Amino acid sequence: MHFELQAECPHTGARAGLIHTAHGVIETPVFMPVGTQATVKGVTQRDLAGELDAKIILANTYHLFLRPGHELIRELGGLHKFMSWPRAILTDSGGFQVFSLSDLRKVTDQGVLFRSHLDGDAHLFTPESTVDVQLALGSDIIMPLDECIAYPASREAAYQAMRRTVNWAHAAYGHYRRRVEESASQPALFPIVQGSMFADLRRACAAELTDLDAPGYAVGGLSVGEPRSLSLEMTEVTLGILPRDRPRYVMGVGMPEELPEYVARGVDMMDCVLPSRNARNGYLFTSSGRVVIKQARYRDDVAPIDPNCQCYTCRTYSRAYLRHLYQAGEILFATLATLHNLNYYLDIMRQIRQAIELGTFPAYLDGIRNRAAVE
Amino acid sequence: MHFELQAECPHTGARAGLIHTAHGVIETPVFMPVGTQATVKGVTQRDLAGELDAKIILANTYHLFLRPGHELIRELGGLHKFMSWPRAILTDSGGFQVFSLSDLRKVTDQGVLFRSHLDGDAHLFTPESTVDVQLALGSDIIMPLDECIAYPASREAAYQAMRRTVNWAHAAYGHYRRRVEESASQPALFPIVQGSMFADLRRACAAELTDLDAPGYAVGGLSVGEPRSLSLEMTEVTLGILPRDRPRYVMGVGMPEELPEYVARGVDMMDCVLPSRNARNGYLFTSSGRVVIKQARYRDDVAPIDPNCQCYTCRTYSRAYLRHLYQAGEILFATLATLHNLNYYLDIMRQIRQAIELGTFPAYLDGIRNRAAVE
Repeated sequence: MHFELQAECPHTGARAGLIHTAHGVIETPVFMPVGTQATVKGVTQRDLAGELDAKIILANTYHLFLRPGHELIRELGGLHKFMSWPRAILTDSGGFQVFSLSDLRKVTDQGVLFRSHLDGDAHLFTPESTVDVQLALGSDIIMPLDECIAYPASREAAYQAMRRTVNWAHAAYGHYRRRVEESASQPALFPIVQGSMFADLRRACAAELTDLDAPGYAVGGLSVGEPRSLSLEMTEVTLGILPRDRPRYVMGVGMPEELPEYVARGVDMMDCVLPSRNARNGYLFTSSGRVVIKQARYRDDVAPIDPNCQCYTCRTYSRAYLRHLYQAGEILFATLATLHNLNYYLDIMRQIRQAIELGTFPAYLDGIRNRAAVE
Repeated sequence: MHFELQAECPHTGARAGLIHTAHGVIETPVFMPVGTQATVKGVTQRDLAGELDAKIILANTYHLFLRPGHELIRELGGLHKFMSWPRAILTDSGGFQVFSLSDLRKVTDQGVLFRSHLDGDAHLFTPESTVDVQLALGSDIIMPLDECIAYPASREAAYQAMRRTVNWAHAAYGHYRRRVEESASQPALFPIVQGSMFADLRRACAAELTDLDAPGYAVGGLSVGEPRSLSLEMTEVTLGILPRDRPRYVMGVGMPEELPEYVARGVDMMDCVLPSRNARNGYLFTSSGRVVIKQARYRDDVAPIDPNCQCYTCRTYSRAYLRHLYQAGEILFATLATLHNLNYYLDIMRQIRQAIELGTFPAYLDGIRNRAAVE
């Protein structure tokens, strides 16, 4: 994997680039749809590549480790082949899911012991084992085990988790370097910056991780309940330390109007379950605000979700029909709504990238801010 | 609507024809996918027309009457426009659902009083009102209210239901003739033959309904629990009376190996929830028998569901991946499995039609019977 910086905004931190992987070239800034269990819920791989033209998706190590199991996926030729997705895949380390889904977890310096949310079986994730799991999956970009703590956290707790994250990153990197030579896949490993909402801890963590000379870096531990301004502030603080010539990935953000804010701070990659999860719950993003499809006002509304949208759903179906599908609990609703919301996010990223290339990103950002202020 | 008979098998009752409608030409024999609530569950209208090339689908009057309501669908331009389906639609009268889904139903000569399975509200379906509902929907082929009774039934109960069905068919037809001239849609109305499993009642009912000189006829009251040989026998008895130059539709059948049996007896149209419902439950039809995808044997099976199938699912995904999606409760499973099972049914119908045209239908039928005997 290598990162090619193509254009930088002279007035903000925004950049446009290309990430070259064994499974295609990714235009950045990029939003990665979340395919938790080796599927972006309700969307065929054909539509993911065709209608949406997603260049990279995210899959969850924790879920795939538990079911169907990484060894099975390795036997079947890796995750790309297993899920028939020829383009790039990033996998997280599973750490976030351990902290959010499983109970009876116990964190030690060695790793994290947890019980499966599926059957209660006990498992241990270590910095080394999660690298092995991701090598078995054959992802293009892999993440080391980190300790993601809740918000708010005491400075002491944040410090301990940051230190453990740095130590685990070094352990993961050492193991990765030994294992990757004999591995069929040659993924890039992106260390994760932690430090809760303490700027000095974030800076210290970022500085220590740059010693690894990794091909890219991630910012974790955001979107855990803190005010949005704080997420942006921590991103800015962290990115000031990270090397300019490597892609920067902020994990688990954000709302549509936040995407250009992250880009303005130098972020190249983002992912979030919001567009797909909100879609299934009937919350649809549009260029003129949110459409809550169950509302009675859409009962006889023949307009598409968003008249400015060119997605399959908006080209084909009315709000009235979509409301009917939602009210009737029809599966097709999830598919059509997810296609729309993901297209909305990917379109924003395409607009952002174009604005950076054309040198009009500051004006684009102002437009988004003004619209958000009015709404 | 008119029916064009193109080829008849000299050795069986099988025929190939064309049904010309305002929404396209339907090649017969035809299997109609069931789109209960204005959607074939889990399948986009694009795939229904493109991947599957379905020429006609069935929608349920009972469900659409209750939700979103036929008046709303009329206001929005009719069912084709509402659901973005430009091809033909057949709607049933709602009678079968009243008898199978709602409780507190009361049948009188006037019609059937029932409570909605959604909210318990009381509604009355009459021969006249169900015609009005279907005219509002704008279907291409509509069905009169009939009384569908359980199996087994006494001769007296069967006789009474048959008589009521004939009377209702006349009432529906009279109302239809008065209403259709002022209606935006000009659908064909197919009377339904009842008579339970009594051959003489079936014959008498068919004979009386032919007086209506309808553009097509249906056989109802089958697939209600009787042995399969009896369903075929009743079909044969009934079709012997119905006019040769009109399409014959047997409602609610059948299993894949039964499709050619119905065709051999002169059936032109069939519908059934089996392929789509079984798909969602993980039962997949293949040229070498049924695949129950949850079985452990498919855990690491890299073959497609059916190596002889050309559907999107079989072109793209392995049994191992589909089993994973099923086990994980993923929406995508329903979509992919439904695409496969419906394609399997529609392929059978395409093979049957080709065999009739080539004069090889008896050999085709023998092949299916021999394979069924072996399995």
